[in-house]
Amino acid sequence: MARVNRQIALAERPQGAPTVACFALRETPMPAPGEGEVLLETLWLSLDPYMRGRMHDGPSYATPTPVGAAMQGGTVGRVVASRDPKFKEGDIALGYGGWQQFWVEQAKSLMKLDPNQAPVTTALGVLGMPGFTGWYGLTQIGKPKAGETVVVAAASGPVGSMVAQLAQLKGANAVAVAGGTDKVAWIRKALGIETALDHRSPSFAKELAAAAAKGVDVYFENVGGHVFSAVLPLLNNDARVPVCGLIAHYNDRAAPPGPDRLPELLSNVLRKRLLVQGFIISFHYELYPQFLREVAPLVREGKLRYREDVVEGLEKAPEAFIGLLQGKNFGKLLVKVA
Amino acid sequence: MARVNRQIALAERPQGAPTVACFALRETPMPAPGEGEVLLETLWLSLDPYMRGRMHDGPSYATPTPVGAAMQGGTVGRVVASRDPKFKEGDIALGYGGWQQFWVEQAKSLMKLDPNQAPVTTALGVLGMPGFTGWYGLTQIGKPKAGETVVVAAASGPVGSMVAQLAQLKGANAVAVAGGTDKVAWIRKALGIETALDHRSPSFAKELAAAAAKGVDVYFENVGGHVFSAVLPLLNNDARVPVCGLIAHYNDRAAPPGPDRLPELLSNVLRKRLLVQGFIISFHYELYPQFLREVAPLVREGKLRYREDVVEGLEKAPEAFIGLLQGKNFGKLLVKVA
Repeated sequence: MARVNRQIALAERPQGAPTVACFALRETPMPAPGEGEVLLETLWLSLDPYMRGRMHDGPSYATPTPVGAAMQGGTVGRVVASRDPKFKEGDIALGYGGWQQFWVEQAKSLMKLDPNQAPVTTALGVLGMPGFTGWYGLTQIGKPKAGETVVVAAASGPVGSMVAQLAQLKGANAVAVAGGTDKVAWIRKALGIETALDHRSPSFAKELAAAAAKGVDVYFENVGGHVFSAVLPLLNNDARVPVCGLIAHYNDRAAPPGPDRLPELLSNVLRKRLLVQGFIISFHYELYPQFLREVAPLVREGKLRYREDVVEGLEKAPEAFIGLLQGKNFGKLLVKVA
Repeated sequence: MARVNRQIALAERPQGAPTVACFALRETPMPAPGEGEVLLETLWLSLDPYMRGRMHDGPSYATPTPVGAAMQGGTVGRVVASRDPKFKEGDIALGYGGWQQFWVEQAKSLMKLDPNQAPVTTALGVLGMPGFTGWYGLTQIGKPKAGETVVVAAASGPVGSMVAQLAQLKGANAVAVAGGTDKVAWIRKALGIETALDHRSPSFAKELAAAAAKGVDVYFENVGGHVFSAVLPLLNNDARVPVCGLIAHYNDRAAPPGPDRLPELLSNVLRKRLLVQGFIISFHYELYPQFLREVAPLVREGKLRYREDVVEGLEKAPEAFIGLLQGKNFGKLLVKVA
């Protein structure tokens, strides 16, 4: 076993878009588990947009990562040493190990995975936090009825593809938006969602209006930016807008130039009786078992599909994460660490 | 009885703030009730901000008033002639007669009022649509818990004073905002709400931050503008923002200059898990009996107070309405017609 641990730390806080200079690969002493703790070797590291929030120290629902500390993140690992009876060497578990090769975590906060039930990477994607985010926002806030129109962006990603497929399974008219013709083609072919649009098209707003000819009843907001702008005038009375992400704005350094559209948004909220509700999935894990009961069989039976985008090697994580914020990933972004 | 009716019609659609030229006083033939209808003489006409929306023909939840037609509005009238067994001459009823001396309405859409139960003007204010609006938004969307902080603007008006007093009765920390020292003094003295602030104060944002030292849990949005801007940074996690009005923006002709604060609002929604929900009270009258059961006793016992601002004469309605949009009224604005 290795004597040292390798990790990627936050070297400096980004001003605008993160660069590779914001990250530092370094060696640290191999951690040792205390009583009730487990040492794990990272197999898979999940890269997710929320990590951009942890890099800055502005107001947030979560404590920012201190400069010099390892980047945080969800991980799947193999148990190397256990000081808790619930885990033994060789077990596979989901935890929150961060951007590093080895980590120590309390046994009670790890979730054991059975590789025979589902590929272990699904615990970081379709059956993990991103999939749960899509399920929660759609079923608990969006609540689409059959025949209603649901729009979701980043629809080849792990959140958006969950939303689009669930909406279609529930009998709604799913409109899936993604960036690039390859993603749009995959959504149509692999997910079976006919109405898929490329937001990079110069006529995107017109195409969306045509695709949502009866207006939009649920807009699952995970991107912001010009997709939101195109959806806003199409929202129907009593539309619901769950807000779980705004990736288009995470690198904003200041408010964009005017005009100021805040009054227009509020005016839409009033006139159309909109429900706009933010949610942070970490506060809703009491529903995670319900999500798994509902969605895991759909994944097993192939009724709900997903795509993974795998990068090999921990040292590739910074570049991959920077690309994620630009929409360069194609599917759930994972780093294969061991 | 008069042979002619006098009414105020919409003469032209306003560009920005309405002027008196937008209205025309004119004589029309006395209407006659058909079978199942009632002819009433207007005693009281209610003037309300929503009427601004009816004057323009942009997208709305309601059909705009056609140019040349009488302005719409809630009224209390005395029955002059009835062709329905439920009403007889001399009865007092609440209806939707508009800006005119006489009107005909179907008996089934009138509500008979008992002047011995409550002053009939309360059916247009504290116990009518405006009071119901405040009650609905606060109790069905805002849902303040004891000890939470509730901010409401236009708090000497019929909606805001309902919200502020109900919030305080429910054990919340009510912060009442109004425009002018006289209104603020009245809120403190007559409503017994100690924390009353003048939004015209140059240090309003600072005063609000000091008054809401533990942050804002419910912001009842009925004005928009700089009150909203001052509240936004103070909103707590899981805050609720019922939106029933945006009087500061009704006369906007275009989006205000930048920066564009729409992304900032969405970022707050996400980060703080805000609930922002618009509502139009006319869609919720199934709860009106519940509102009356709860609030009418409070009004009768003097636990819930209100103020009326009475203008005499139908011909004064345009000027009074223009003033309403500028916050010149002090309490529920009523026109005494007969």
